[in-house]
Amino acid sequence: MLQAALKAGTAGRRSVFEVFTRRLPNGRRYGVVAGTGRVLDAVENFRFEPDVLAFLREKNIVDGATLDWLAGYRFSGDIWGYPEGEVYFPGSPILRVEGSFAECVLLETVILSILNHDSAIAAAASRMASAAGDRPLIEMGARRTHELAAVAASRAAYIGGFSSTSDLAAGFRYDIPTVGTSAHAFTLLHDSERDAFRAQVDSLGGGTTLLVDTYDVTEAVRTAVEIAGPELGAVRIDSGDLLLVAHRVRQQLDELGATGTKITVTSDLDEYAIASLAAAPVDAYGVGTQLVTGSGHPTASMVYKLVARAESDDPAAPLVPVAKKSTGGKTSVGGRKWAARRLDAYGVAEAEVVGTGEVPPELAGRQLLVPLAEDGEVLVREPLDVVRDRHAAARAGLPLSATQLSRGEPVIPTEYAPGPSGS
Amino acid sequence: MLQAALKAGTAGRRSVFEVFTRRLPNGRRYGVVAGTGRVLDAVENFRFEPDVLAFLREKNIVDGATLDWLAGYRFSGDIWGYPEGEVYFPGSPILRVEGSFAECVLLETVILSILNHDSAIAAAASRMASAAGDRPLIEMGARRTHELAAVAASRAAYIGGFSSTSDLAAGFRYDIPTVGTSAHAFTLLHDSERDAFRAQVDSLGGGTTLLVDTYDVTEAVRTAVEIAGPELGAVRIDSGDLLLVAHRVRQQLDELGATGTKITVTSDLDEYAIASLAAAPVDAYGVGTQLVTGSGHPTASMVYKLVARAESDDPAAPLVPVAKKSTGGKTSVGGRKWAARRLDAYGVAEAEVVGTGEVPPELAGRQLLVPLAEDGEVLVREPLDVVRDRHAAARAGLPLSATQLSRGEPVIPTEYAPGPSGS
Repeated sequence: MLQAALKAGTAGRRSVFEVFTRRLPNGRRYGVVAGTGRVLDAVENFRFEPDVLAFLREKNIVDGATLDWLAGYRFSGDIWGYPEGEVYFPGSPILRVEGSFAECVLLETVILSILNHDSAIAAAASRMASAAGDRPLIEMGARRTHELAAVAASRAAYIGGFSSTSDLAAGFRYDIPTVGTSAHAFTLLHDSERDAFRAQVDSLGGGTTLLVDTYDVTEAVRTAVEIAGPELGAVRIDSGDLLLVAHRVRQQLDELGATGTKITVTSDLDEYAIASLAAAPVDAYGVGTQLVTGSGHPTASMVYKLVARAESDDPAAPLVPVAKKSTGGKTSVGGRKWAARRLDAYGVAEAEVVGTGEVPPELAGRQLLVPLAEDGEVLVREPLDVVRDRHAAARAGLPLSATQLSRGEPVIPTEYAPGPSGS
Repeated sequence: MLQAALKAGTAGRRSVFEVFTRRLPNGRRYGVVAGTGRVLDAVENFRFEPDVLAFLREKNIVDGATLDWLAGYRFSGDIWGYPEGEVYFPGSPILRVEGSFAECVLLETVILSILNHDSAIAAAASRMASAAGDRPLIEMGARRTHELAAVAASRAAYIGGFSSTSDLAAGFRYDIPTVGTSAHAFTLLHDSERDAFRAQVDSLGGGTTLLVDTYDVTEAVRTAVEIAGPELGAVRIDSGDLLLVAHRVRQQLDELGATGTKITVTSDLDEYAIASLAAAPVDAYGVGTQLVTGSGHPTASMVYKLVARAESDDPAAPLVPVAKKSTGGKTSVGGRKWAARRLDAYGVAEAEVVGTGEVPPELAGRQLLVPLAEDGEVLVREPLDVVRDRHAAARAGLPLSATQLSRGEPVIPTEYAPGPSGS
């Protein structure tokens, strides 16, 4: 594409690409924008290194003129988008990239990879966080997804409302609070469960979390309190009927005087399992597989579409809206868009409004797109806590049914404002 | 775990960890071992860099003795496993890692991340390849998964039977054949579809693939053949009822004399959609989302379990088998295992046999585990084509019902051979 556009003289036409999704995953009420910070880093650092250029030359993948152009690549355009952590709906223009066709089209894969992955994880995390209420969620999914996707997943989970991660690489990379875990292997390594607990408490103190389901839970809880004392930090249960076992363990801990000892549960939890444990005496949830696989929806179906481009090769040519003609439901709306969230009289979101013309005055203060990069320079670098808080606030601004776990329609409709003629 | 084991003096106990899955994804007939080559690279390069050690120290995550131990980390143990590309079943010990407890336990996350991800993708790819028969499959999923997971996914897809990838990074990294794609944006950039096709043919020649569904397919096909001549390489259809459209386009191409022009279809294909197009005049399939998300099963549920360890801290102590007591269905079988595939009288696989004692003489020649690393040195580096061919052969050695797409049980049962007493 790039080579043909360079040769045809159209590669330099100013272009506007937008990222959006045509639909939320089946039954979901809202989406969560995540990955924007990673996108901005990736765009700023997007280069073609000499070994890659040599590969493209040796394999005859592109011609010499294209290689020269790639060697000098540096994104010099503008990016606007929804702030990271915001919620989104079908048609929300969550990212808008403007520049020459050539410089923008090359970014499609990296932008979509990041947003599709991270937003899918953050959406699952957000549902789990709603289901968990005030109880903390620990991200424990690193073993269930690609080794580097895992680090991005921890980041997205934190944005969605998780409290910590067991992935030290994510702690290192993104300063997310980390928690250690003890596995059954540690217990099995030792000559007895008692030896294993003693080794752990000797090294980490009584505030540690002991895994109590390697052999017999009741015996393990008794041994754990015997060794660590009633100040034992927590016990973890990783198998069995968690609802029943948690009740039994709570009762036993209380009888042993360990009334402050917490109960952490893990074991293929998802948002539904978490919700079903709401009335159980559980203090924290560890979630792995279902988090890093987006709880059934591992990708967010976002697309990156050309919505406007210069009318001609003249650098001063005005933009014209463009769109693929609808076939098979793949509708796109042409034109550079604004978006705003309309509130009802109580301040609750009532519609996502998207348009291409003037922003109606009553929505001017509710606009969602903010500048993220200008002339290739990134404008926004946010601490993850800011993003996490923004998500919590955005979710709290939706109608109450947003956090129902049952399948349904997007919690607010997307309305297209009438555009100027021709857009 | 590591810190406690170091302090307790148990960290050096010789240990055997095994990777296996308790079940295949719901309804799947076989699994595909993929990622082994990446695991061996990762293990060989597993180190704790100074910045990571500084992080662990600053955050007080581990104590000084543990930091010192981590700073000198280098895996020095042995690895055996199923050759990459082999098929597997519930309980198949696809990888076995032996060494000190400390050096082996640290590898859990990276080993499982890679095998869980890559095997999930390869399994989906293998089903798609069966469904596609002799028609080539193009991997086009980079935009639908994490940016680096995408490169690993291309590799796994190739092992499973795909022919090429649109991900240049995968071509560069793993020497997988690459194919370019043209997007709707390229057509929309130009003043007309005719201009876009002319630009593409001018640059890439008549053998290129033109995307014909941006506006009207019939008109686009006419224009495409007009511009490229009947030697036009291929047309791509990315929307609509592919079965109907492919038939209509084939007829039109033939009427225009472009009898050699191929038809490539894309658009949310999975193995079922591919199978449903078997009778359609389609020459190649491009597959994205459903491939990189494992066609409904994005992770392979593999676990990494301690199955044996030295009886005591004495370096010469014999190994004893260990296993978590079963609760909630999380069964493990203790002891270091062998595995063999038993064939019937026609040479077709009839059972996966797993055991801990002596290998029965009739299975000695059918053993599945091979040495992969010894004293920390990797013994096996295979070209991806060898792995791909091995997978095709392994799949061909299964009963015919292996490649049925309908849900069912694993195509051969896993049998546990009686072990020596105590294992």
